[in-house]
Amino acid sequence: MKIAVYGYGNLGKGVECAVSKAADMELVGVFTRRAPESVKVHSNVPVYHADELDRFEDQIDVLIICGGSATDLPKMTPVLAKRFNVVDSFDTHASIPEHFDNVDQAARESGHIALISAGWDPGMFSLNRLYASAILPQSSNYTFWGRGVSQGHSDAIRRIAGVVDARQYTVPVPEAVEAVRSGNNPQLSTRQKHTRECYVVAEEGADLERIEKEIVTMPNYFADYDTTVTFITMEELQRNHAGIPHGGMVISSGKTGWENENTHVIEYSLKLDSNPEFTASVLVAFARGIYKMHSRGDKGCKTVFDVAPIDLSPVSPEELRAHLL
Amino acid sequence: MKIAVYGYGNLGKGVECAVSKAADMELVGVFTRRAPESVKVHSNVPVYHADELDRFEDQIDVLIICGGSATDLPKMTPVLAKRFNVVDSFDTHASIPEHFDNVDQAARESGHIALISAGWDPGMFSLNRLYASAILPQSSNYTFWGRGVSQGHSDAIRRIAGVVDARQYTVPVPEAVEAVRSGNNPQLSTRQKHTRECYVVAEEGADLERIEKEIVTMPNYFADYDTTVTFITMEELQRNHAGIPHGGMVISSGKTGWENENTHVIEYSLKLDSNPEFTASVLVAFARGIYKMHSRGDKGCKTVFDVAPIDLSPVSPEELRAHLL
Repeated sequence: MKIAVYGYGNLGKGVECAVSKAADMELVGVFTRRAPESVKVHSNVPVYHADELDRFEDQIDVLIICGGSATDLPKMTPVLAKRFNVVDSFDTHASIPEHFDNVDQAARESGHIALISAGWDPGMFSLNRLYASAILPQSSNYTFWGRGVSQGHSDAIRRIAGVVDARQYTVPVPEAVEAVRSGNNPQLSTRQKHTRECYVVAEEGADLERIEKEIVTMPNYFADYDTTVTFITMEELQRNHAGIPHGGMVISSGKTGWENENTHVIEYSLKLDSNPEFTASVLVAFARGIYKMHSRGDKGCKTVFDVAPIDLSPVSPEELRAHLL
Repeated sequence: MKIAVYGYGNLGKGVECAVSKAADMELVGVFTRRAPESVKVHSNVPVYHADELDRFEDQIDVLIICGGSATDLPKMTPVLAKRFNVVDSFDTHASIPEHFDNVDQAARESGHIALISAGWDPGMFSLNRLYASAILPQSSNYTFWGRGVSQGHSDAIRRIAGVVDARQYTVPVPEAVEAVRSGNNPQLSTRQKHTRECYVVAEEGADLERIEKEIVTMPNYFADYDTTVTFITMEELQRNHAGIPHGGMVISSGKTGWENENTHVIEYSLKLDSNPEFTASVLVAFARGIYKMHSRGDKGCKTVFDVAPIDLSPVSPEELRAHLL
């Protein structure tokens, strides 16, 4: 299976590493919109300019697109799905139906297959919401994120005047998690589910009170949450907040029995040392999945919901049934 | 979708209830090898003798077989798969490949589809072992069962002379669970993973010391575990041990990064008030799945690995993408 990476940020680097560990895959190249000679890859895979993709049409089974959801993927994925089987990690939940339709049209017309929104949320968390809902039709799904670094929220803090650098952790509220685990289906507001912890490096002499106020009152990002701001030095930031950990859990609870007398709680949780490397590993598994589906004649836009689990594994069906079932 | 139940024990009762809550399903009948008039169902579904199945060949989309794995299912499922699309919960892990081959031949020849080994283990736990292994190729999977009632172990105790009734709980060892959650991939013996708690009602005047010794030294069932035996009265058994709770967890941990420097822990856990009712709910969801697959022309033996998650849900793909992805 010949894989290529489009975009070489943290996610693209994770894909490069994950493909190197997959015995059934080969990395054809890293494609970048930057000057290829300026991109230092970790392995000995060749780096090409994105414009060179055309001449690789017969040499790439699946192209893994590692761009951002805000501006890159809505344009990139439909265009690239005309020429390649592609996987992306589009994670703007509200825009998924529109993105799906655009990609579906492009992939269908050209006979390709395109899987969008792979990763862990959307991705593995979505799968667990679906499985739980299918098994327990009247169940409620609760999703908690963290403890982990939110790149978007960290960026939002960095845009404030006087801020040099920042790291924002999203943290589930323990009492809320316990209430959900009890199977009581609590009603929880945004504020009751998560808190936000901000570690901020400010310019020397900056007005810390103003910065703190700008953070905690920022609409959409922080105003609806209990937010704490801690000012630290750059040295502390680099020593204690260098990693990109994340994770979270999907907890579903539902009832069975004629009087709904029996409660069942299903919980799926992730504790990830590296958010981009885990996401990359999910993208690579689903690249394998759509490659198999395409080999059987399938085409169009897919999501994680459409892929039979058996297609994600490099192991034979006989071995999977004997050892994992 | 027209569903029928074959066998009316705890699992069959659970299926009756689960189908009644599925808006897209109708229960055609309960089929039993007992005298139909002796079987009291909960709903107003008709009860038929198993011999009457022949005349329902065109009226049942999926037959859910609720028999035991030891002797019923190895014979029943291949025979019934010749005439119906079927689902079973065959759970003798070591014999799954043989059962698969027998059922596959029967279903393929007759153009039916048969899904074996649905439930939670095998079933949902198997899916989680597979997903984790596909995402993190060098990961280790650990499965813990309980705290919950093991029917097989409770039966084994009941067969001892002087025992009136018994309930056996399988309990994960907390230290073992924590060691796995830490991502350290510990080597764990059978004894280190689970303990077994036995609540036993003995005949008046029975030799309790002999009974306890027979339990804790019983090969396969108890000898490899730290087992505690508590003698209780029938009244205590009925008051405190009437339910059939179960559950457990699959914990997978794996590494990413060029130096395997990042650890990821994936955990899927179930807390079930009623083991048979939850298992029944899984069977019903997979009955929906194979009905859709059969409608598209698929046939032969399948497992939970082969079913795309989207086929398990009664909700439209558009709605699923908009709300659960």
